[in-house]
Amino acid sequence: MWTAQTPPQLSSIRERLIRLEETIIFALIERAQFPRNPPVYIADAILSGPPSFLHFFLAETENLHARVRRYLSPEENAFTRELPASSLPPLPPSTSIMPNDITVCDEIYQVYLHEILPAICPAGDDGNYGSSATCDVAVLQALAKRIHYGKFVAEAKFSAAPDAYIPAIRARDREAVVHELRSPQVEERVLRRIEKKAATYGHDVDFETDLAATCKIAPAAVAELYRRHVIPLTIEVEVRYLFARLD
Amino acid sequence: MWTAQTPPQLSSIRERLIRLEETIIFALIERAQFPRNPPVYIADAILSGPPSFLHFFLAETENLHARVRRYLSPEENAFTRELPASSLPPLPPSTSIMPNDITVCDEIYQVYLHEILPAICPAGDDGNYGSSATCDVAVLQALAKRIHYGKFVAEAKFSAAPDAYIPAIRARDREAVVHELRSPQVEERVLRRIEKKAATYGHDVDFETDLAATCKIAPAAVAELYRRHVIPLTIEVEVRYLFARLD
Repeated sequence: MWTAQTPPQLSSIRERLIRLEETIIFALIERAQFPRNPPVYIADAILSGPPSFLHFFLAETENLHARVRRYLSPEENAFTRELPASSLPPLPPSTSIMPNDITVCDEIYQVYLHEILPAICPAGDDGNYGSSATCDVAVLQALAKRIHYGKFVAEAKFSAAPDAYIPAIRARDREAVVHELRSPQVEERVLRRIEKKAATYGHDVDFETDLAATCKIAPAAVAELYRRHVIPLTIEVEVRYLFARLD
Repeated sequence: MWTAQTPPQLSSIRERLIRLEETIIFALIERAQFPRNPPVYIADAILSGPPSFLHFFLAETENLHARVRRYLSPEENAFTRELPASSLPPLPPSTSIMPNDITVCDEIYQVYLHEILPAICPAGDDGNYGSSATCDVAVLQALAKRIHYGKFVAEAKFSAAPDAYIPAIRARDREAVVHELRSPQVEERVLRRIEKKAATYGHDVDFETDLAATCKIAPAAVAELYRRHVIPLTIEVEVRYLFARLD
């Protein structure tokens, strides 16, 4: 069984997750300034050929980032399957989480296209395809980082109390593992904080008044996206990590 | 003399400039979460060879963006000189501003490295080179967009009152052109709004209290960066545009 030499600390992970909330909200606000711009997501609409413009642009961006070692970090997970090797020397192997190839990037991509985009962007097409795709990539990368942090959360919780998890993992008792991992109280706190952050960062700041009435993004929609997608996908990553943890 | 068929409207330009303030502030806050990380900016430190890591990463990013037509838009200006042709069909030529190759990207790059970075990031090196460079590129692109919008501002002001500009332009009277372009009252308003935005968006949002005492970025430093660099460089773009305007 793999052993964490420097198990991640839950307190420092929480700090990173809280900071990533800003990154996600900023990226969503940036995307929300453009309408949905459907051609970005449809094959053969902007580029000729099968992949959509976003698919192409994301793969090319990840291609560049792979060359500068992004995906050798255990915190990073690429949406694109075949990526070039890094042209930089490799990083020392992680000693805080188990080496793994667990990913929910496909799920994140689908949820982004079919749930998040329609929730945050007004319908319409203003031709800003490149700008929209650039924002899409920023949101996707931020979501992937946040959600795959579940690996660090799972390792921290497992390392702190292995006996609470080992029997349920051995029995492949998914429900028991999820029950042990989740804390409804913490989740409620996260959701309320998210809504407050989205309201603060999304408000138009006016010079005369304190905060204008208009909001660049619906705070409740951002909290809802966390409730319906970010938290469940993070739990999914945690469970998959723990199920592989004893192999 | 070139004539704008659809001169830009000052009111819609102002809206774009106000919205770009958020983009710049969000990007600065994102960069400020990492220390300065000097190896990113030094040749031969991360990559072997002469360009710095940021230089390389920016050029590669712009290379990709050029292939998807970014720099055919009159709103966009690349830092990199030799870029590949777009693989998408060309856009119709702009009818709102004069075709031109005016750029202050070199100046923006130098100001960013030597003035802005030291003002917003604590000294230190945490090894997050890729993340830092990704944020650097976002800040640089946002600043370049904001500052080169001066071309649209200049065209709007010129189109609205050509007689106020033509004699000074013909006489190459830089001071008179600048005097006509500037509005100290508007600039003061921008600076106060910037400081307020940086305070609002940079504050940590806490669940119990309204806004925590800590701030991710010094609001006064952001206003100062506008006062000392963004506004003067925008004026520089406006003057260069108008001096070329009658040729």
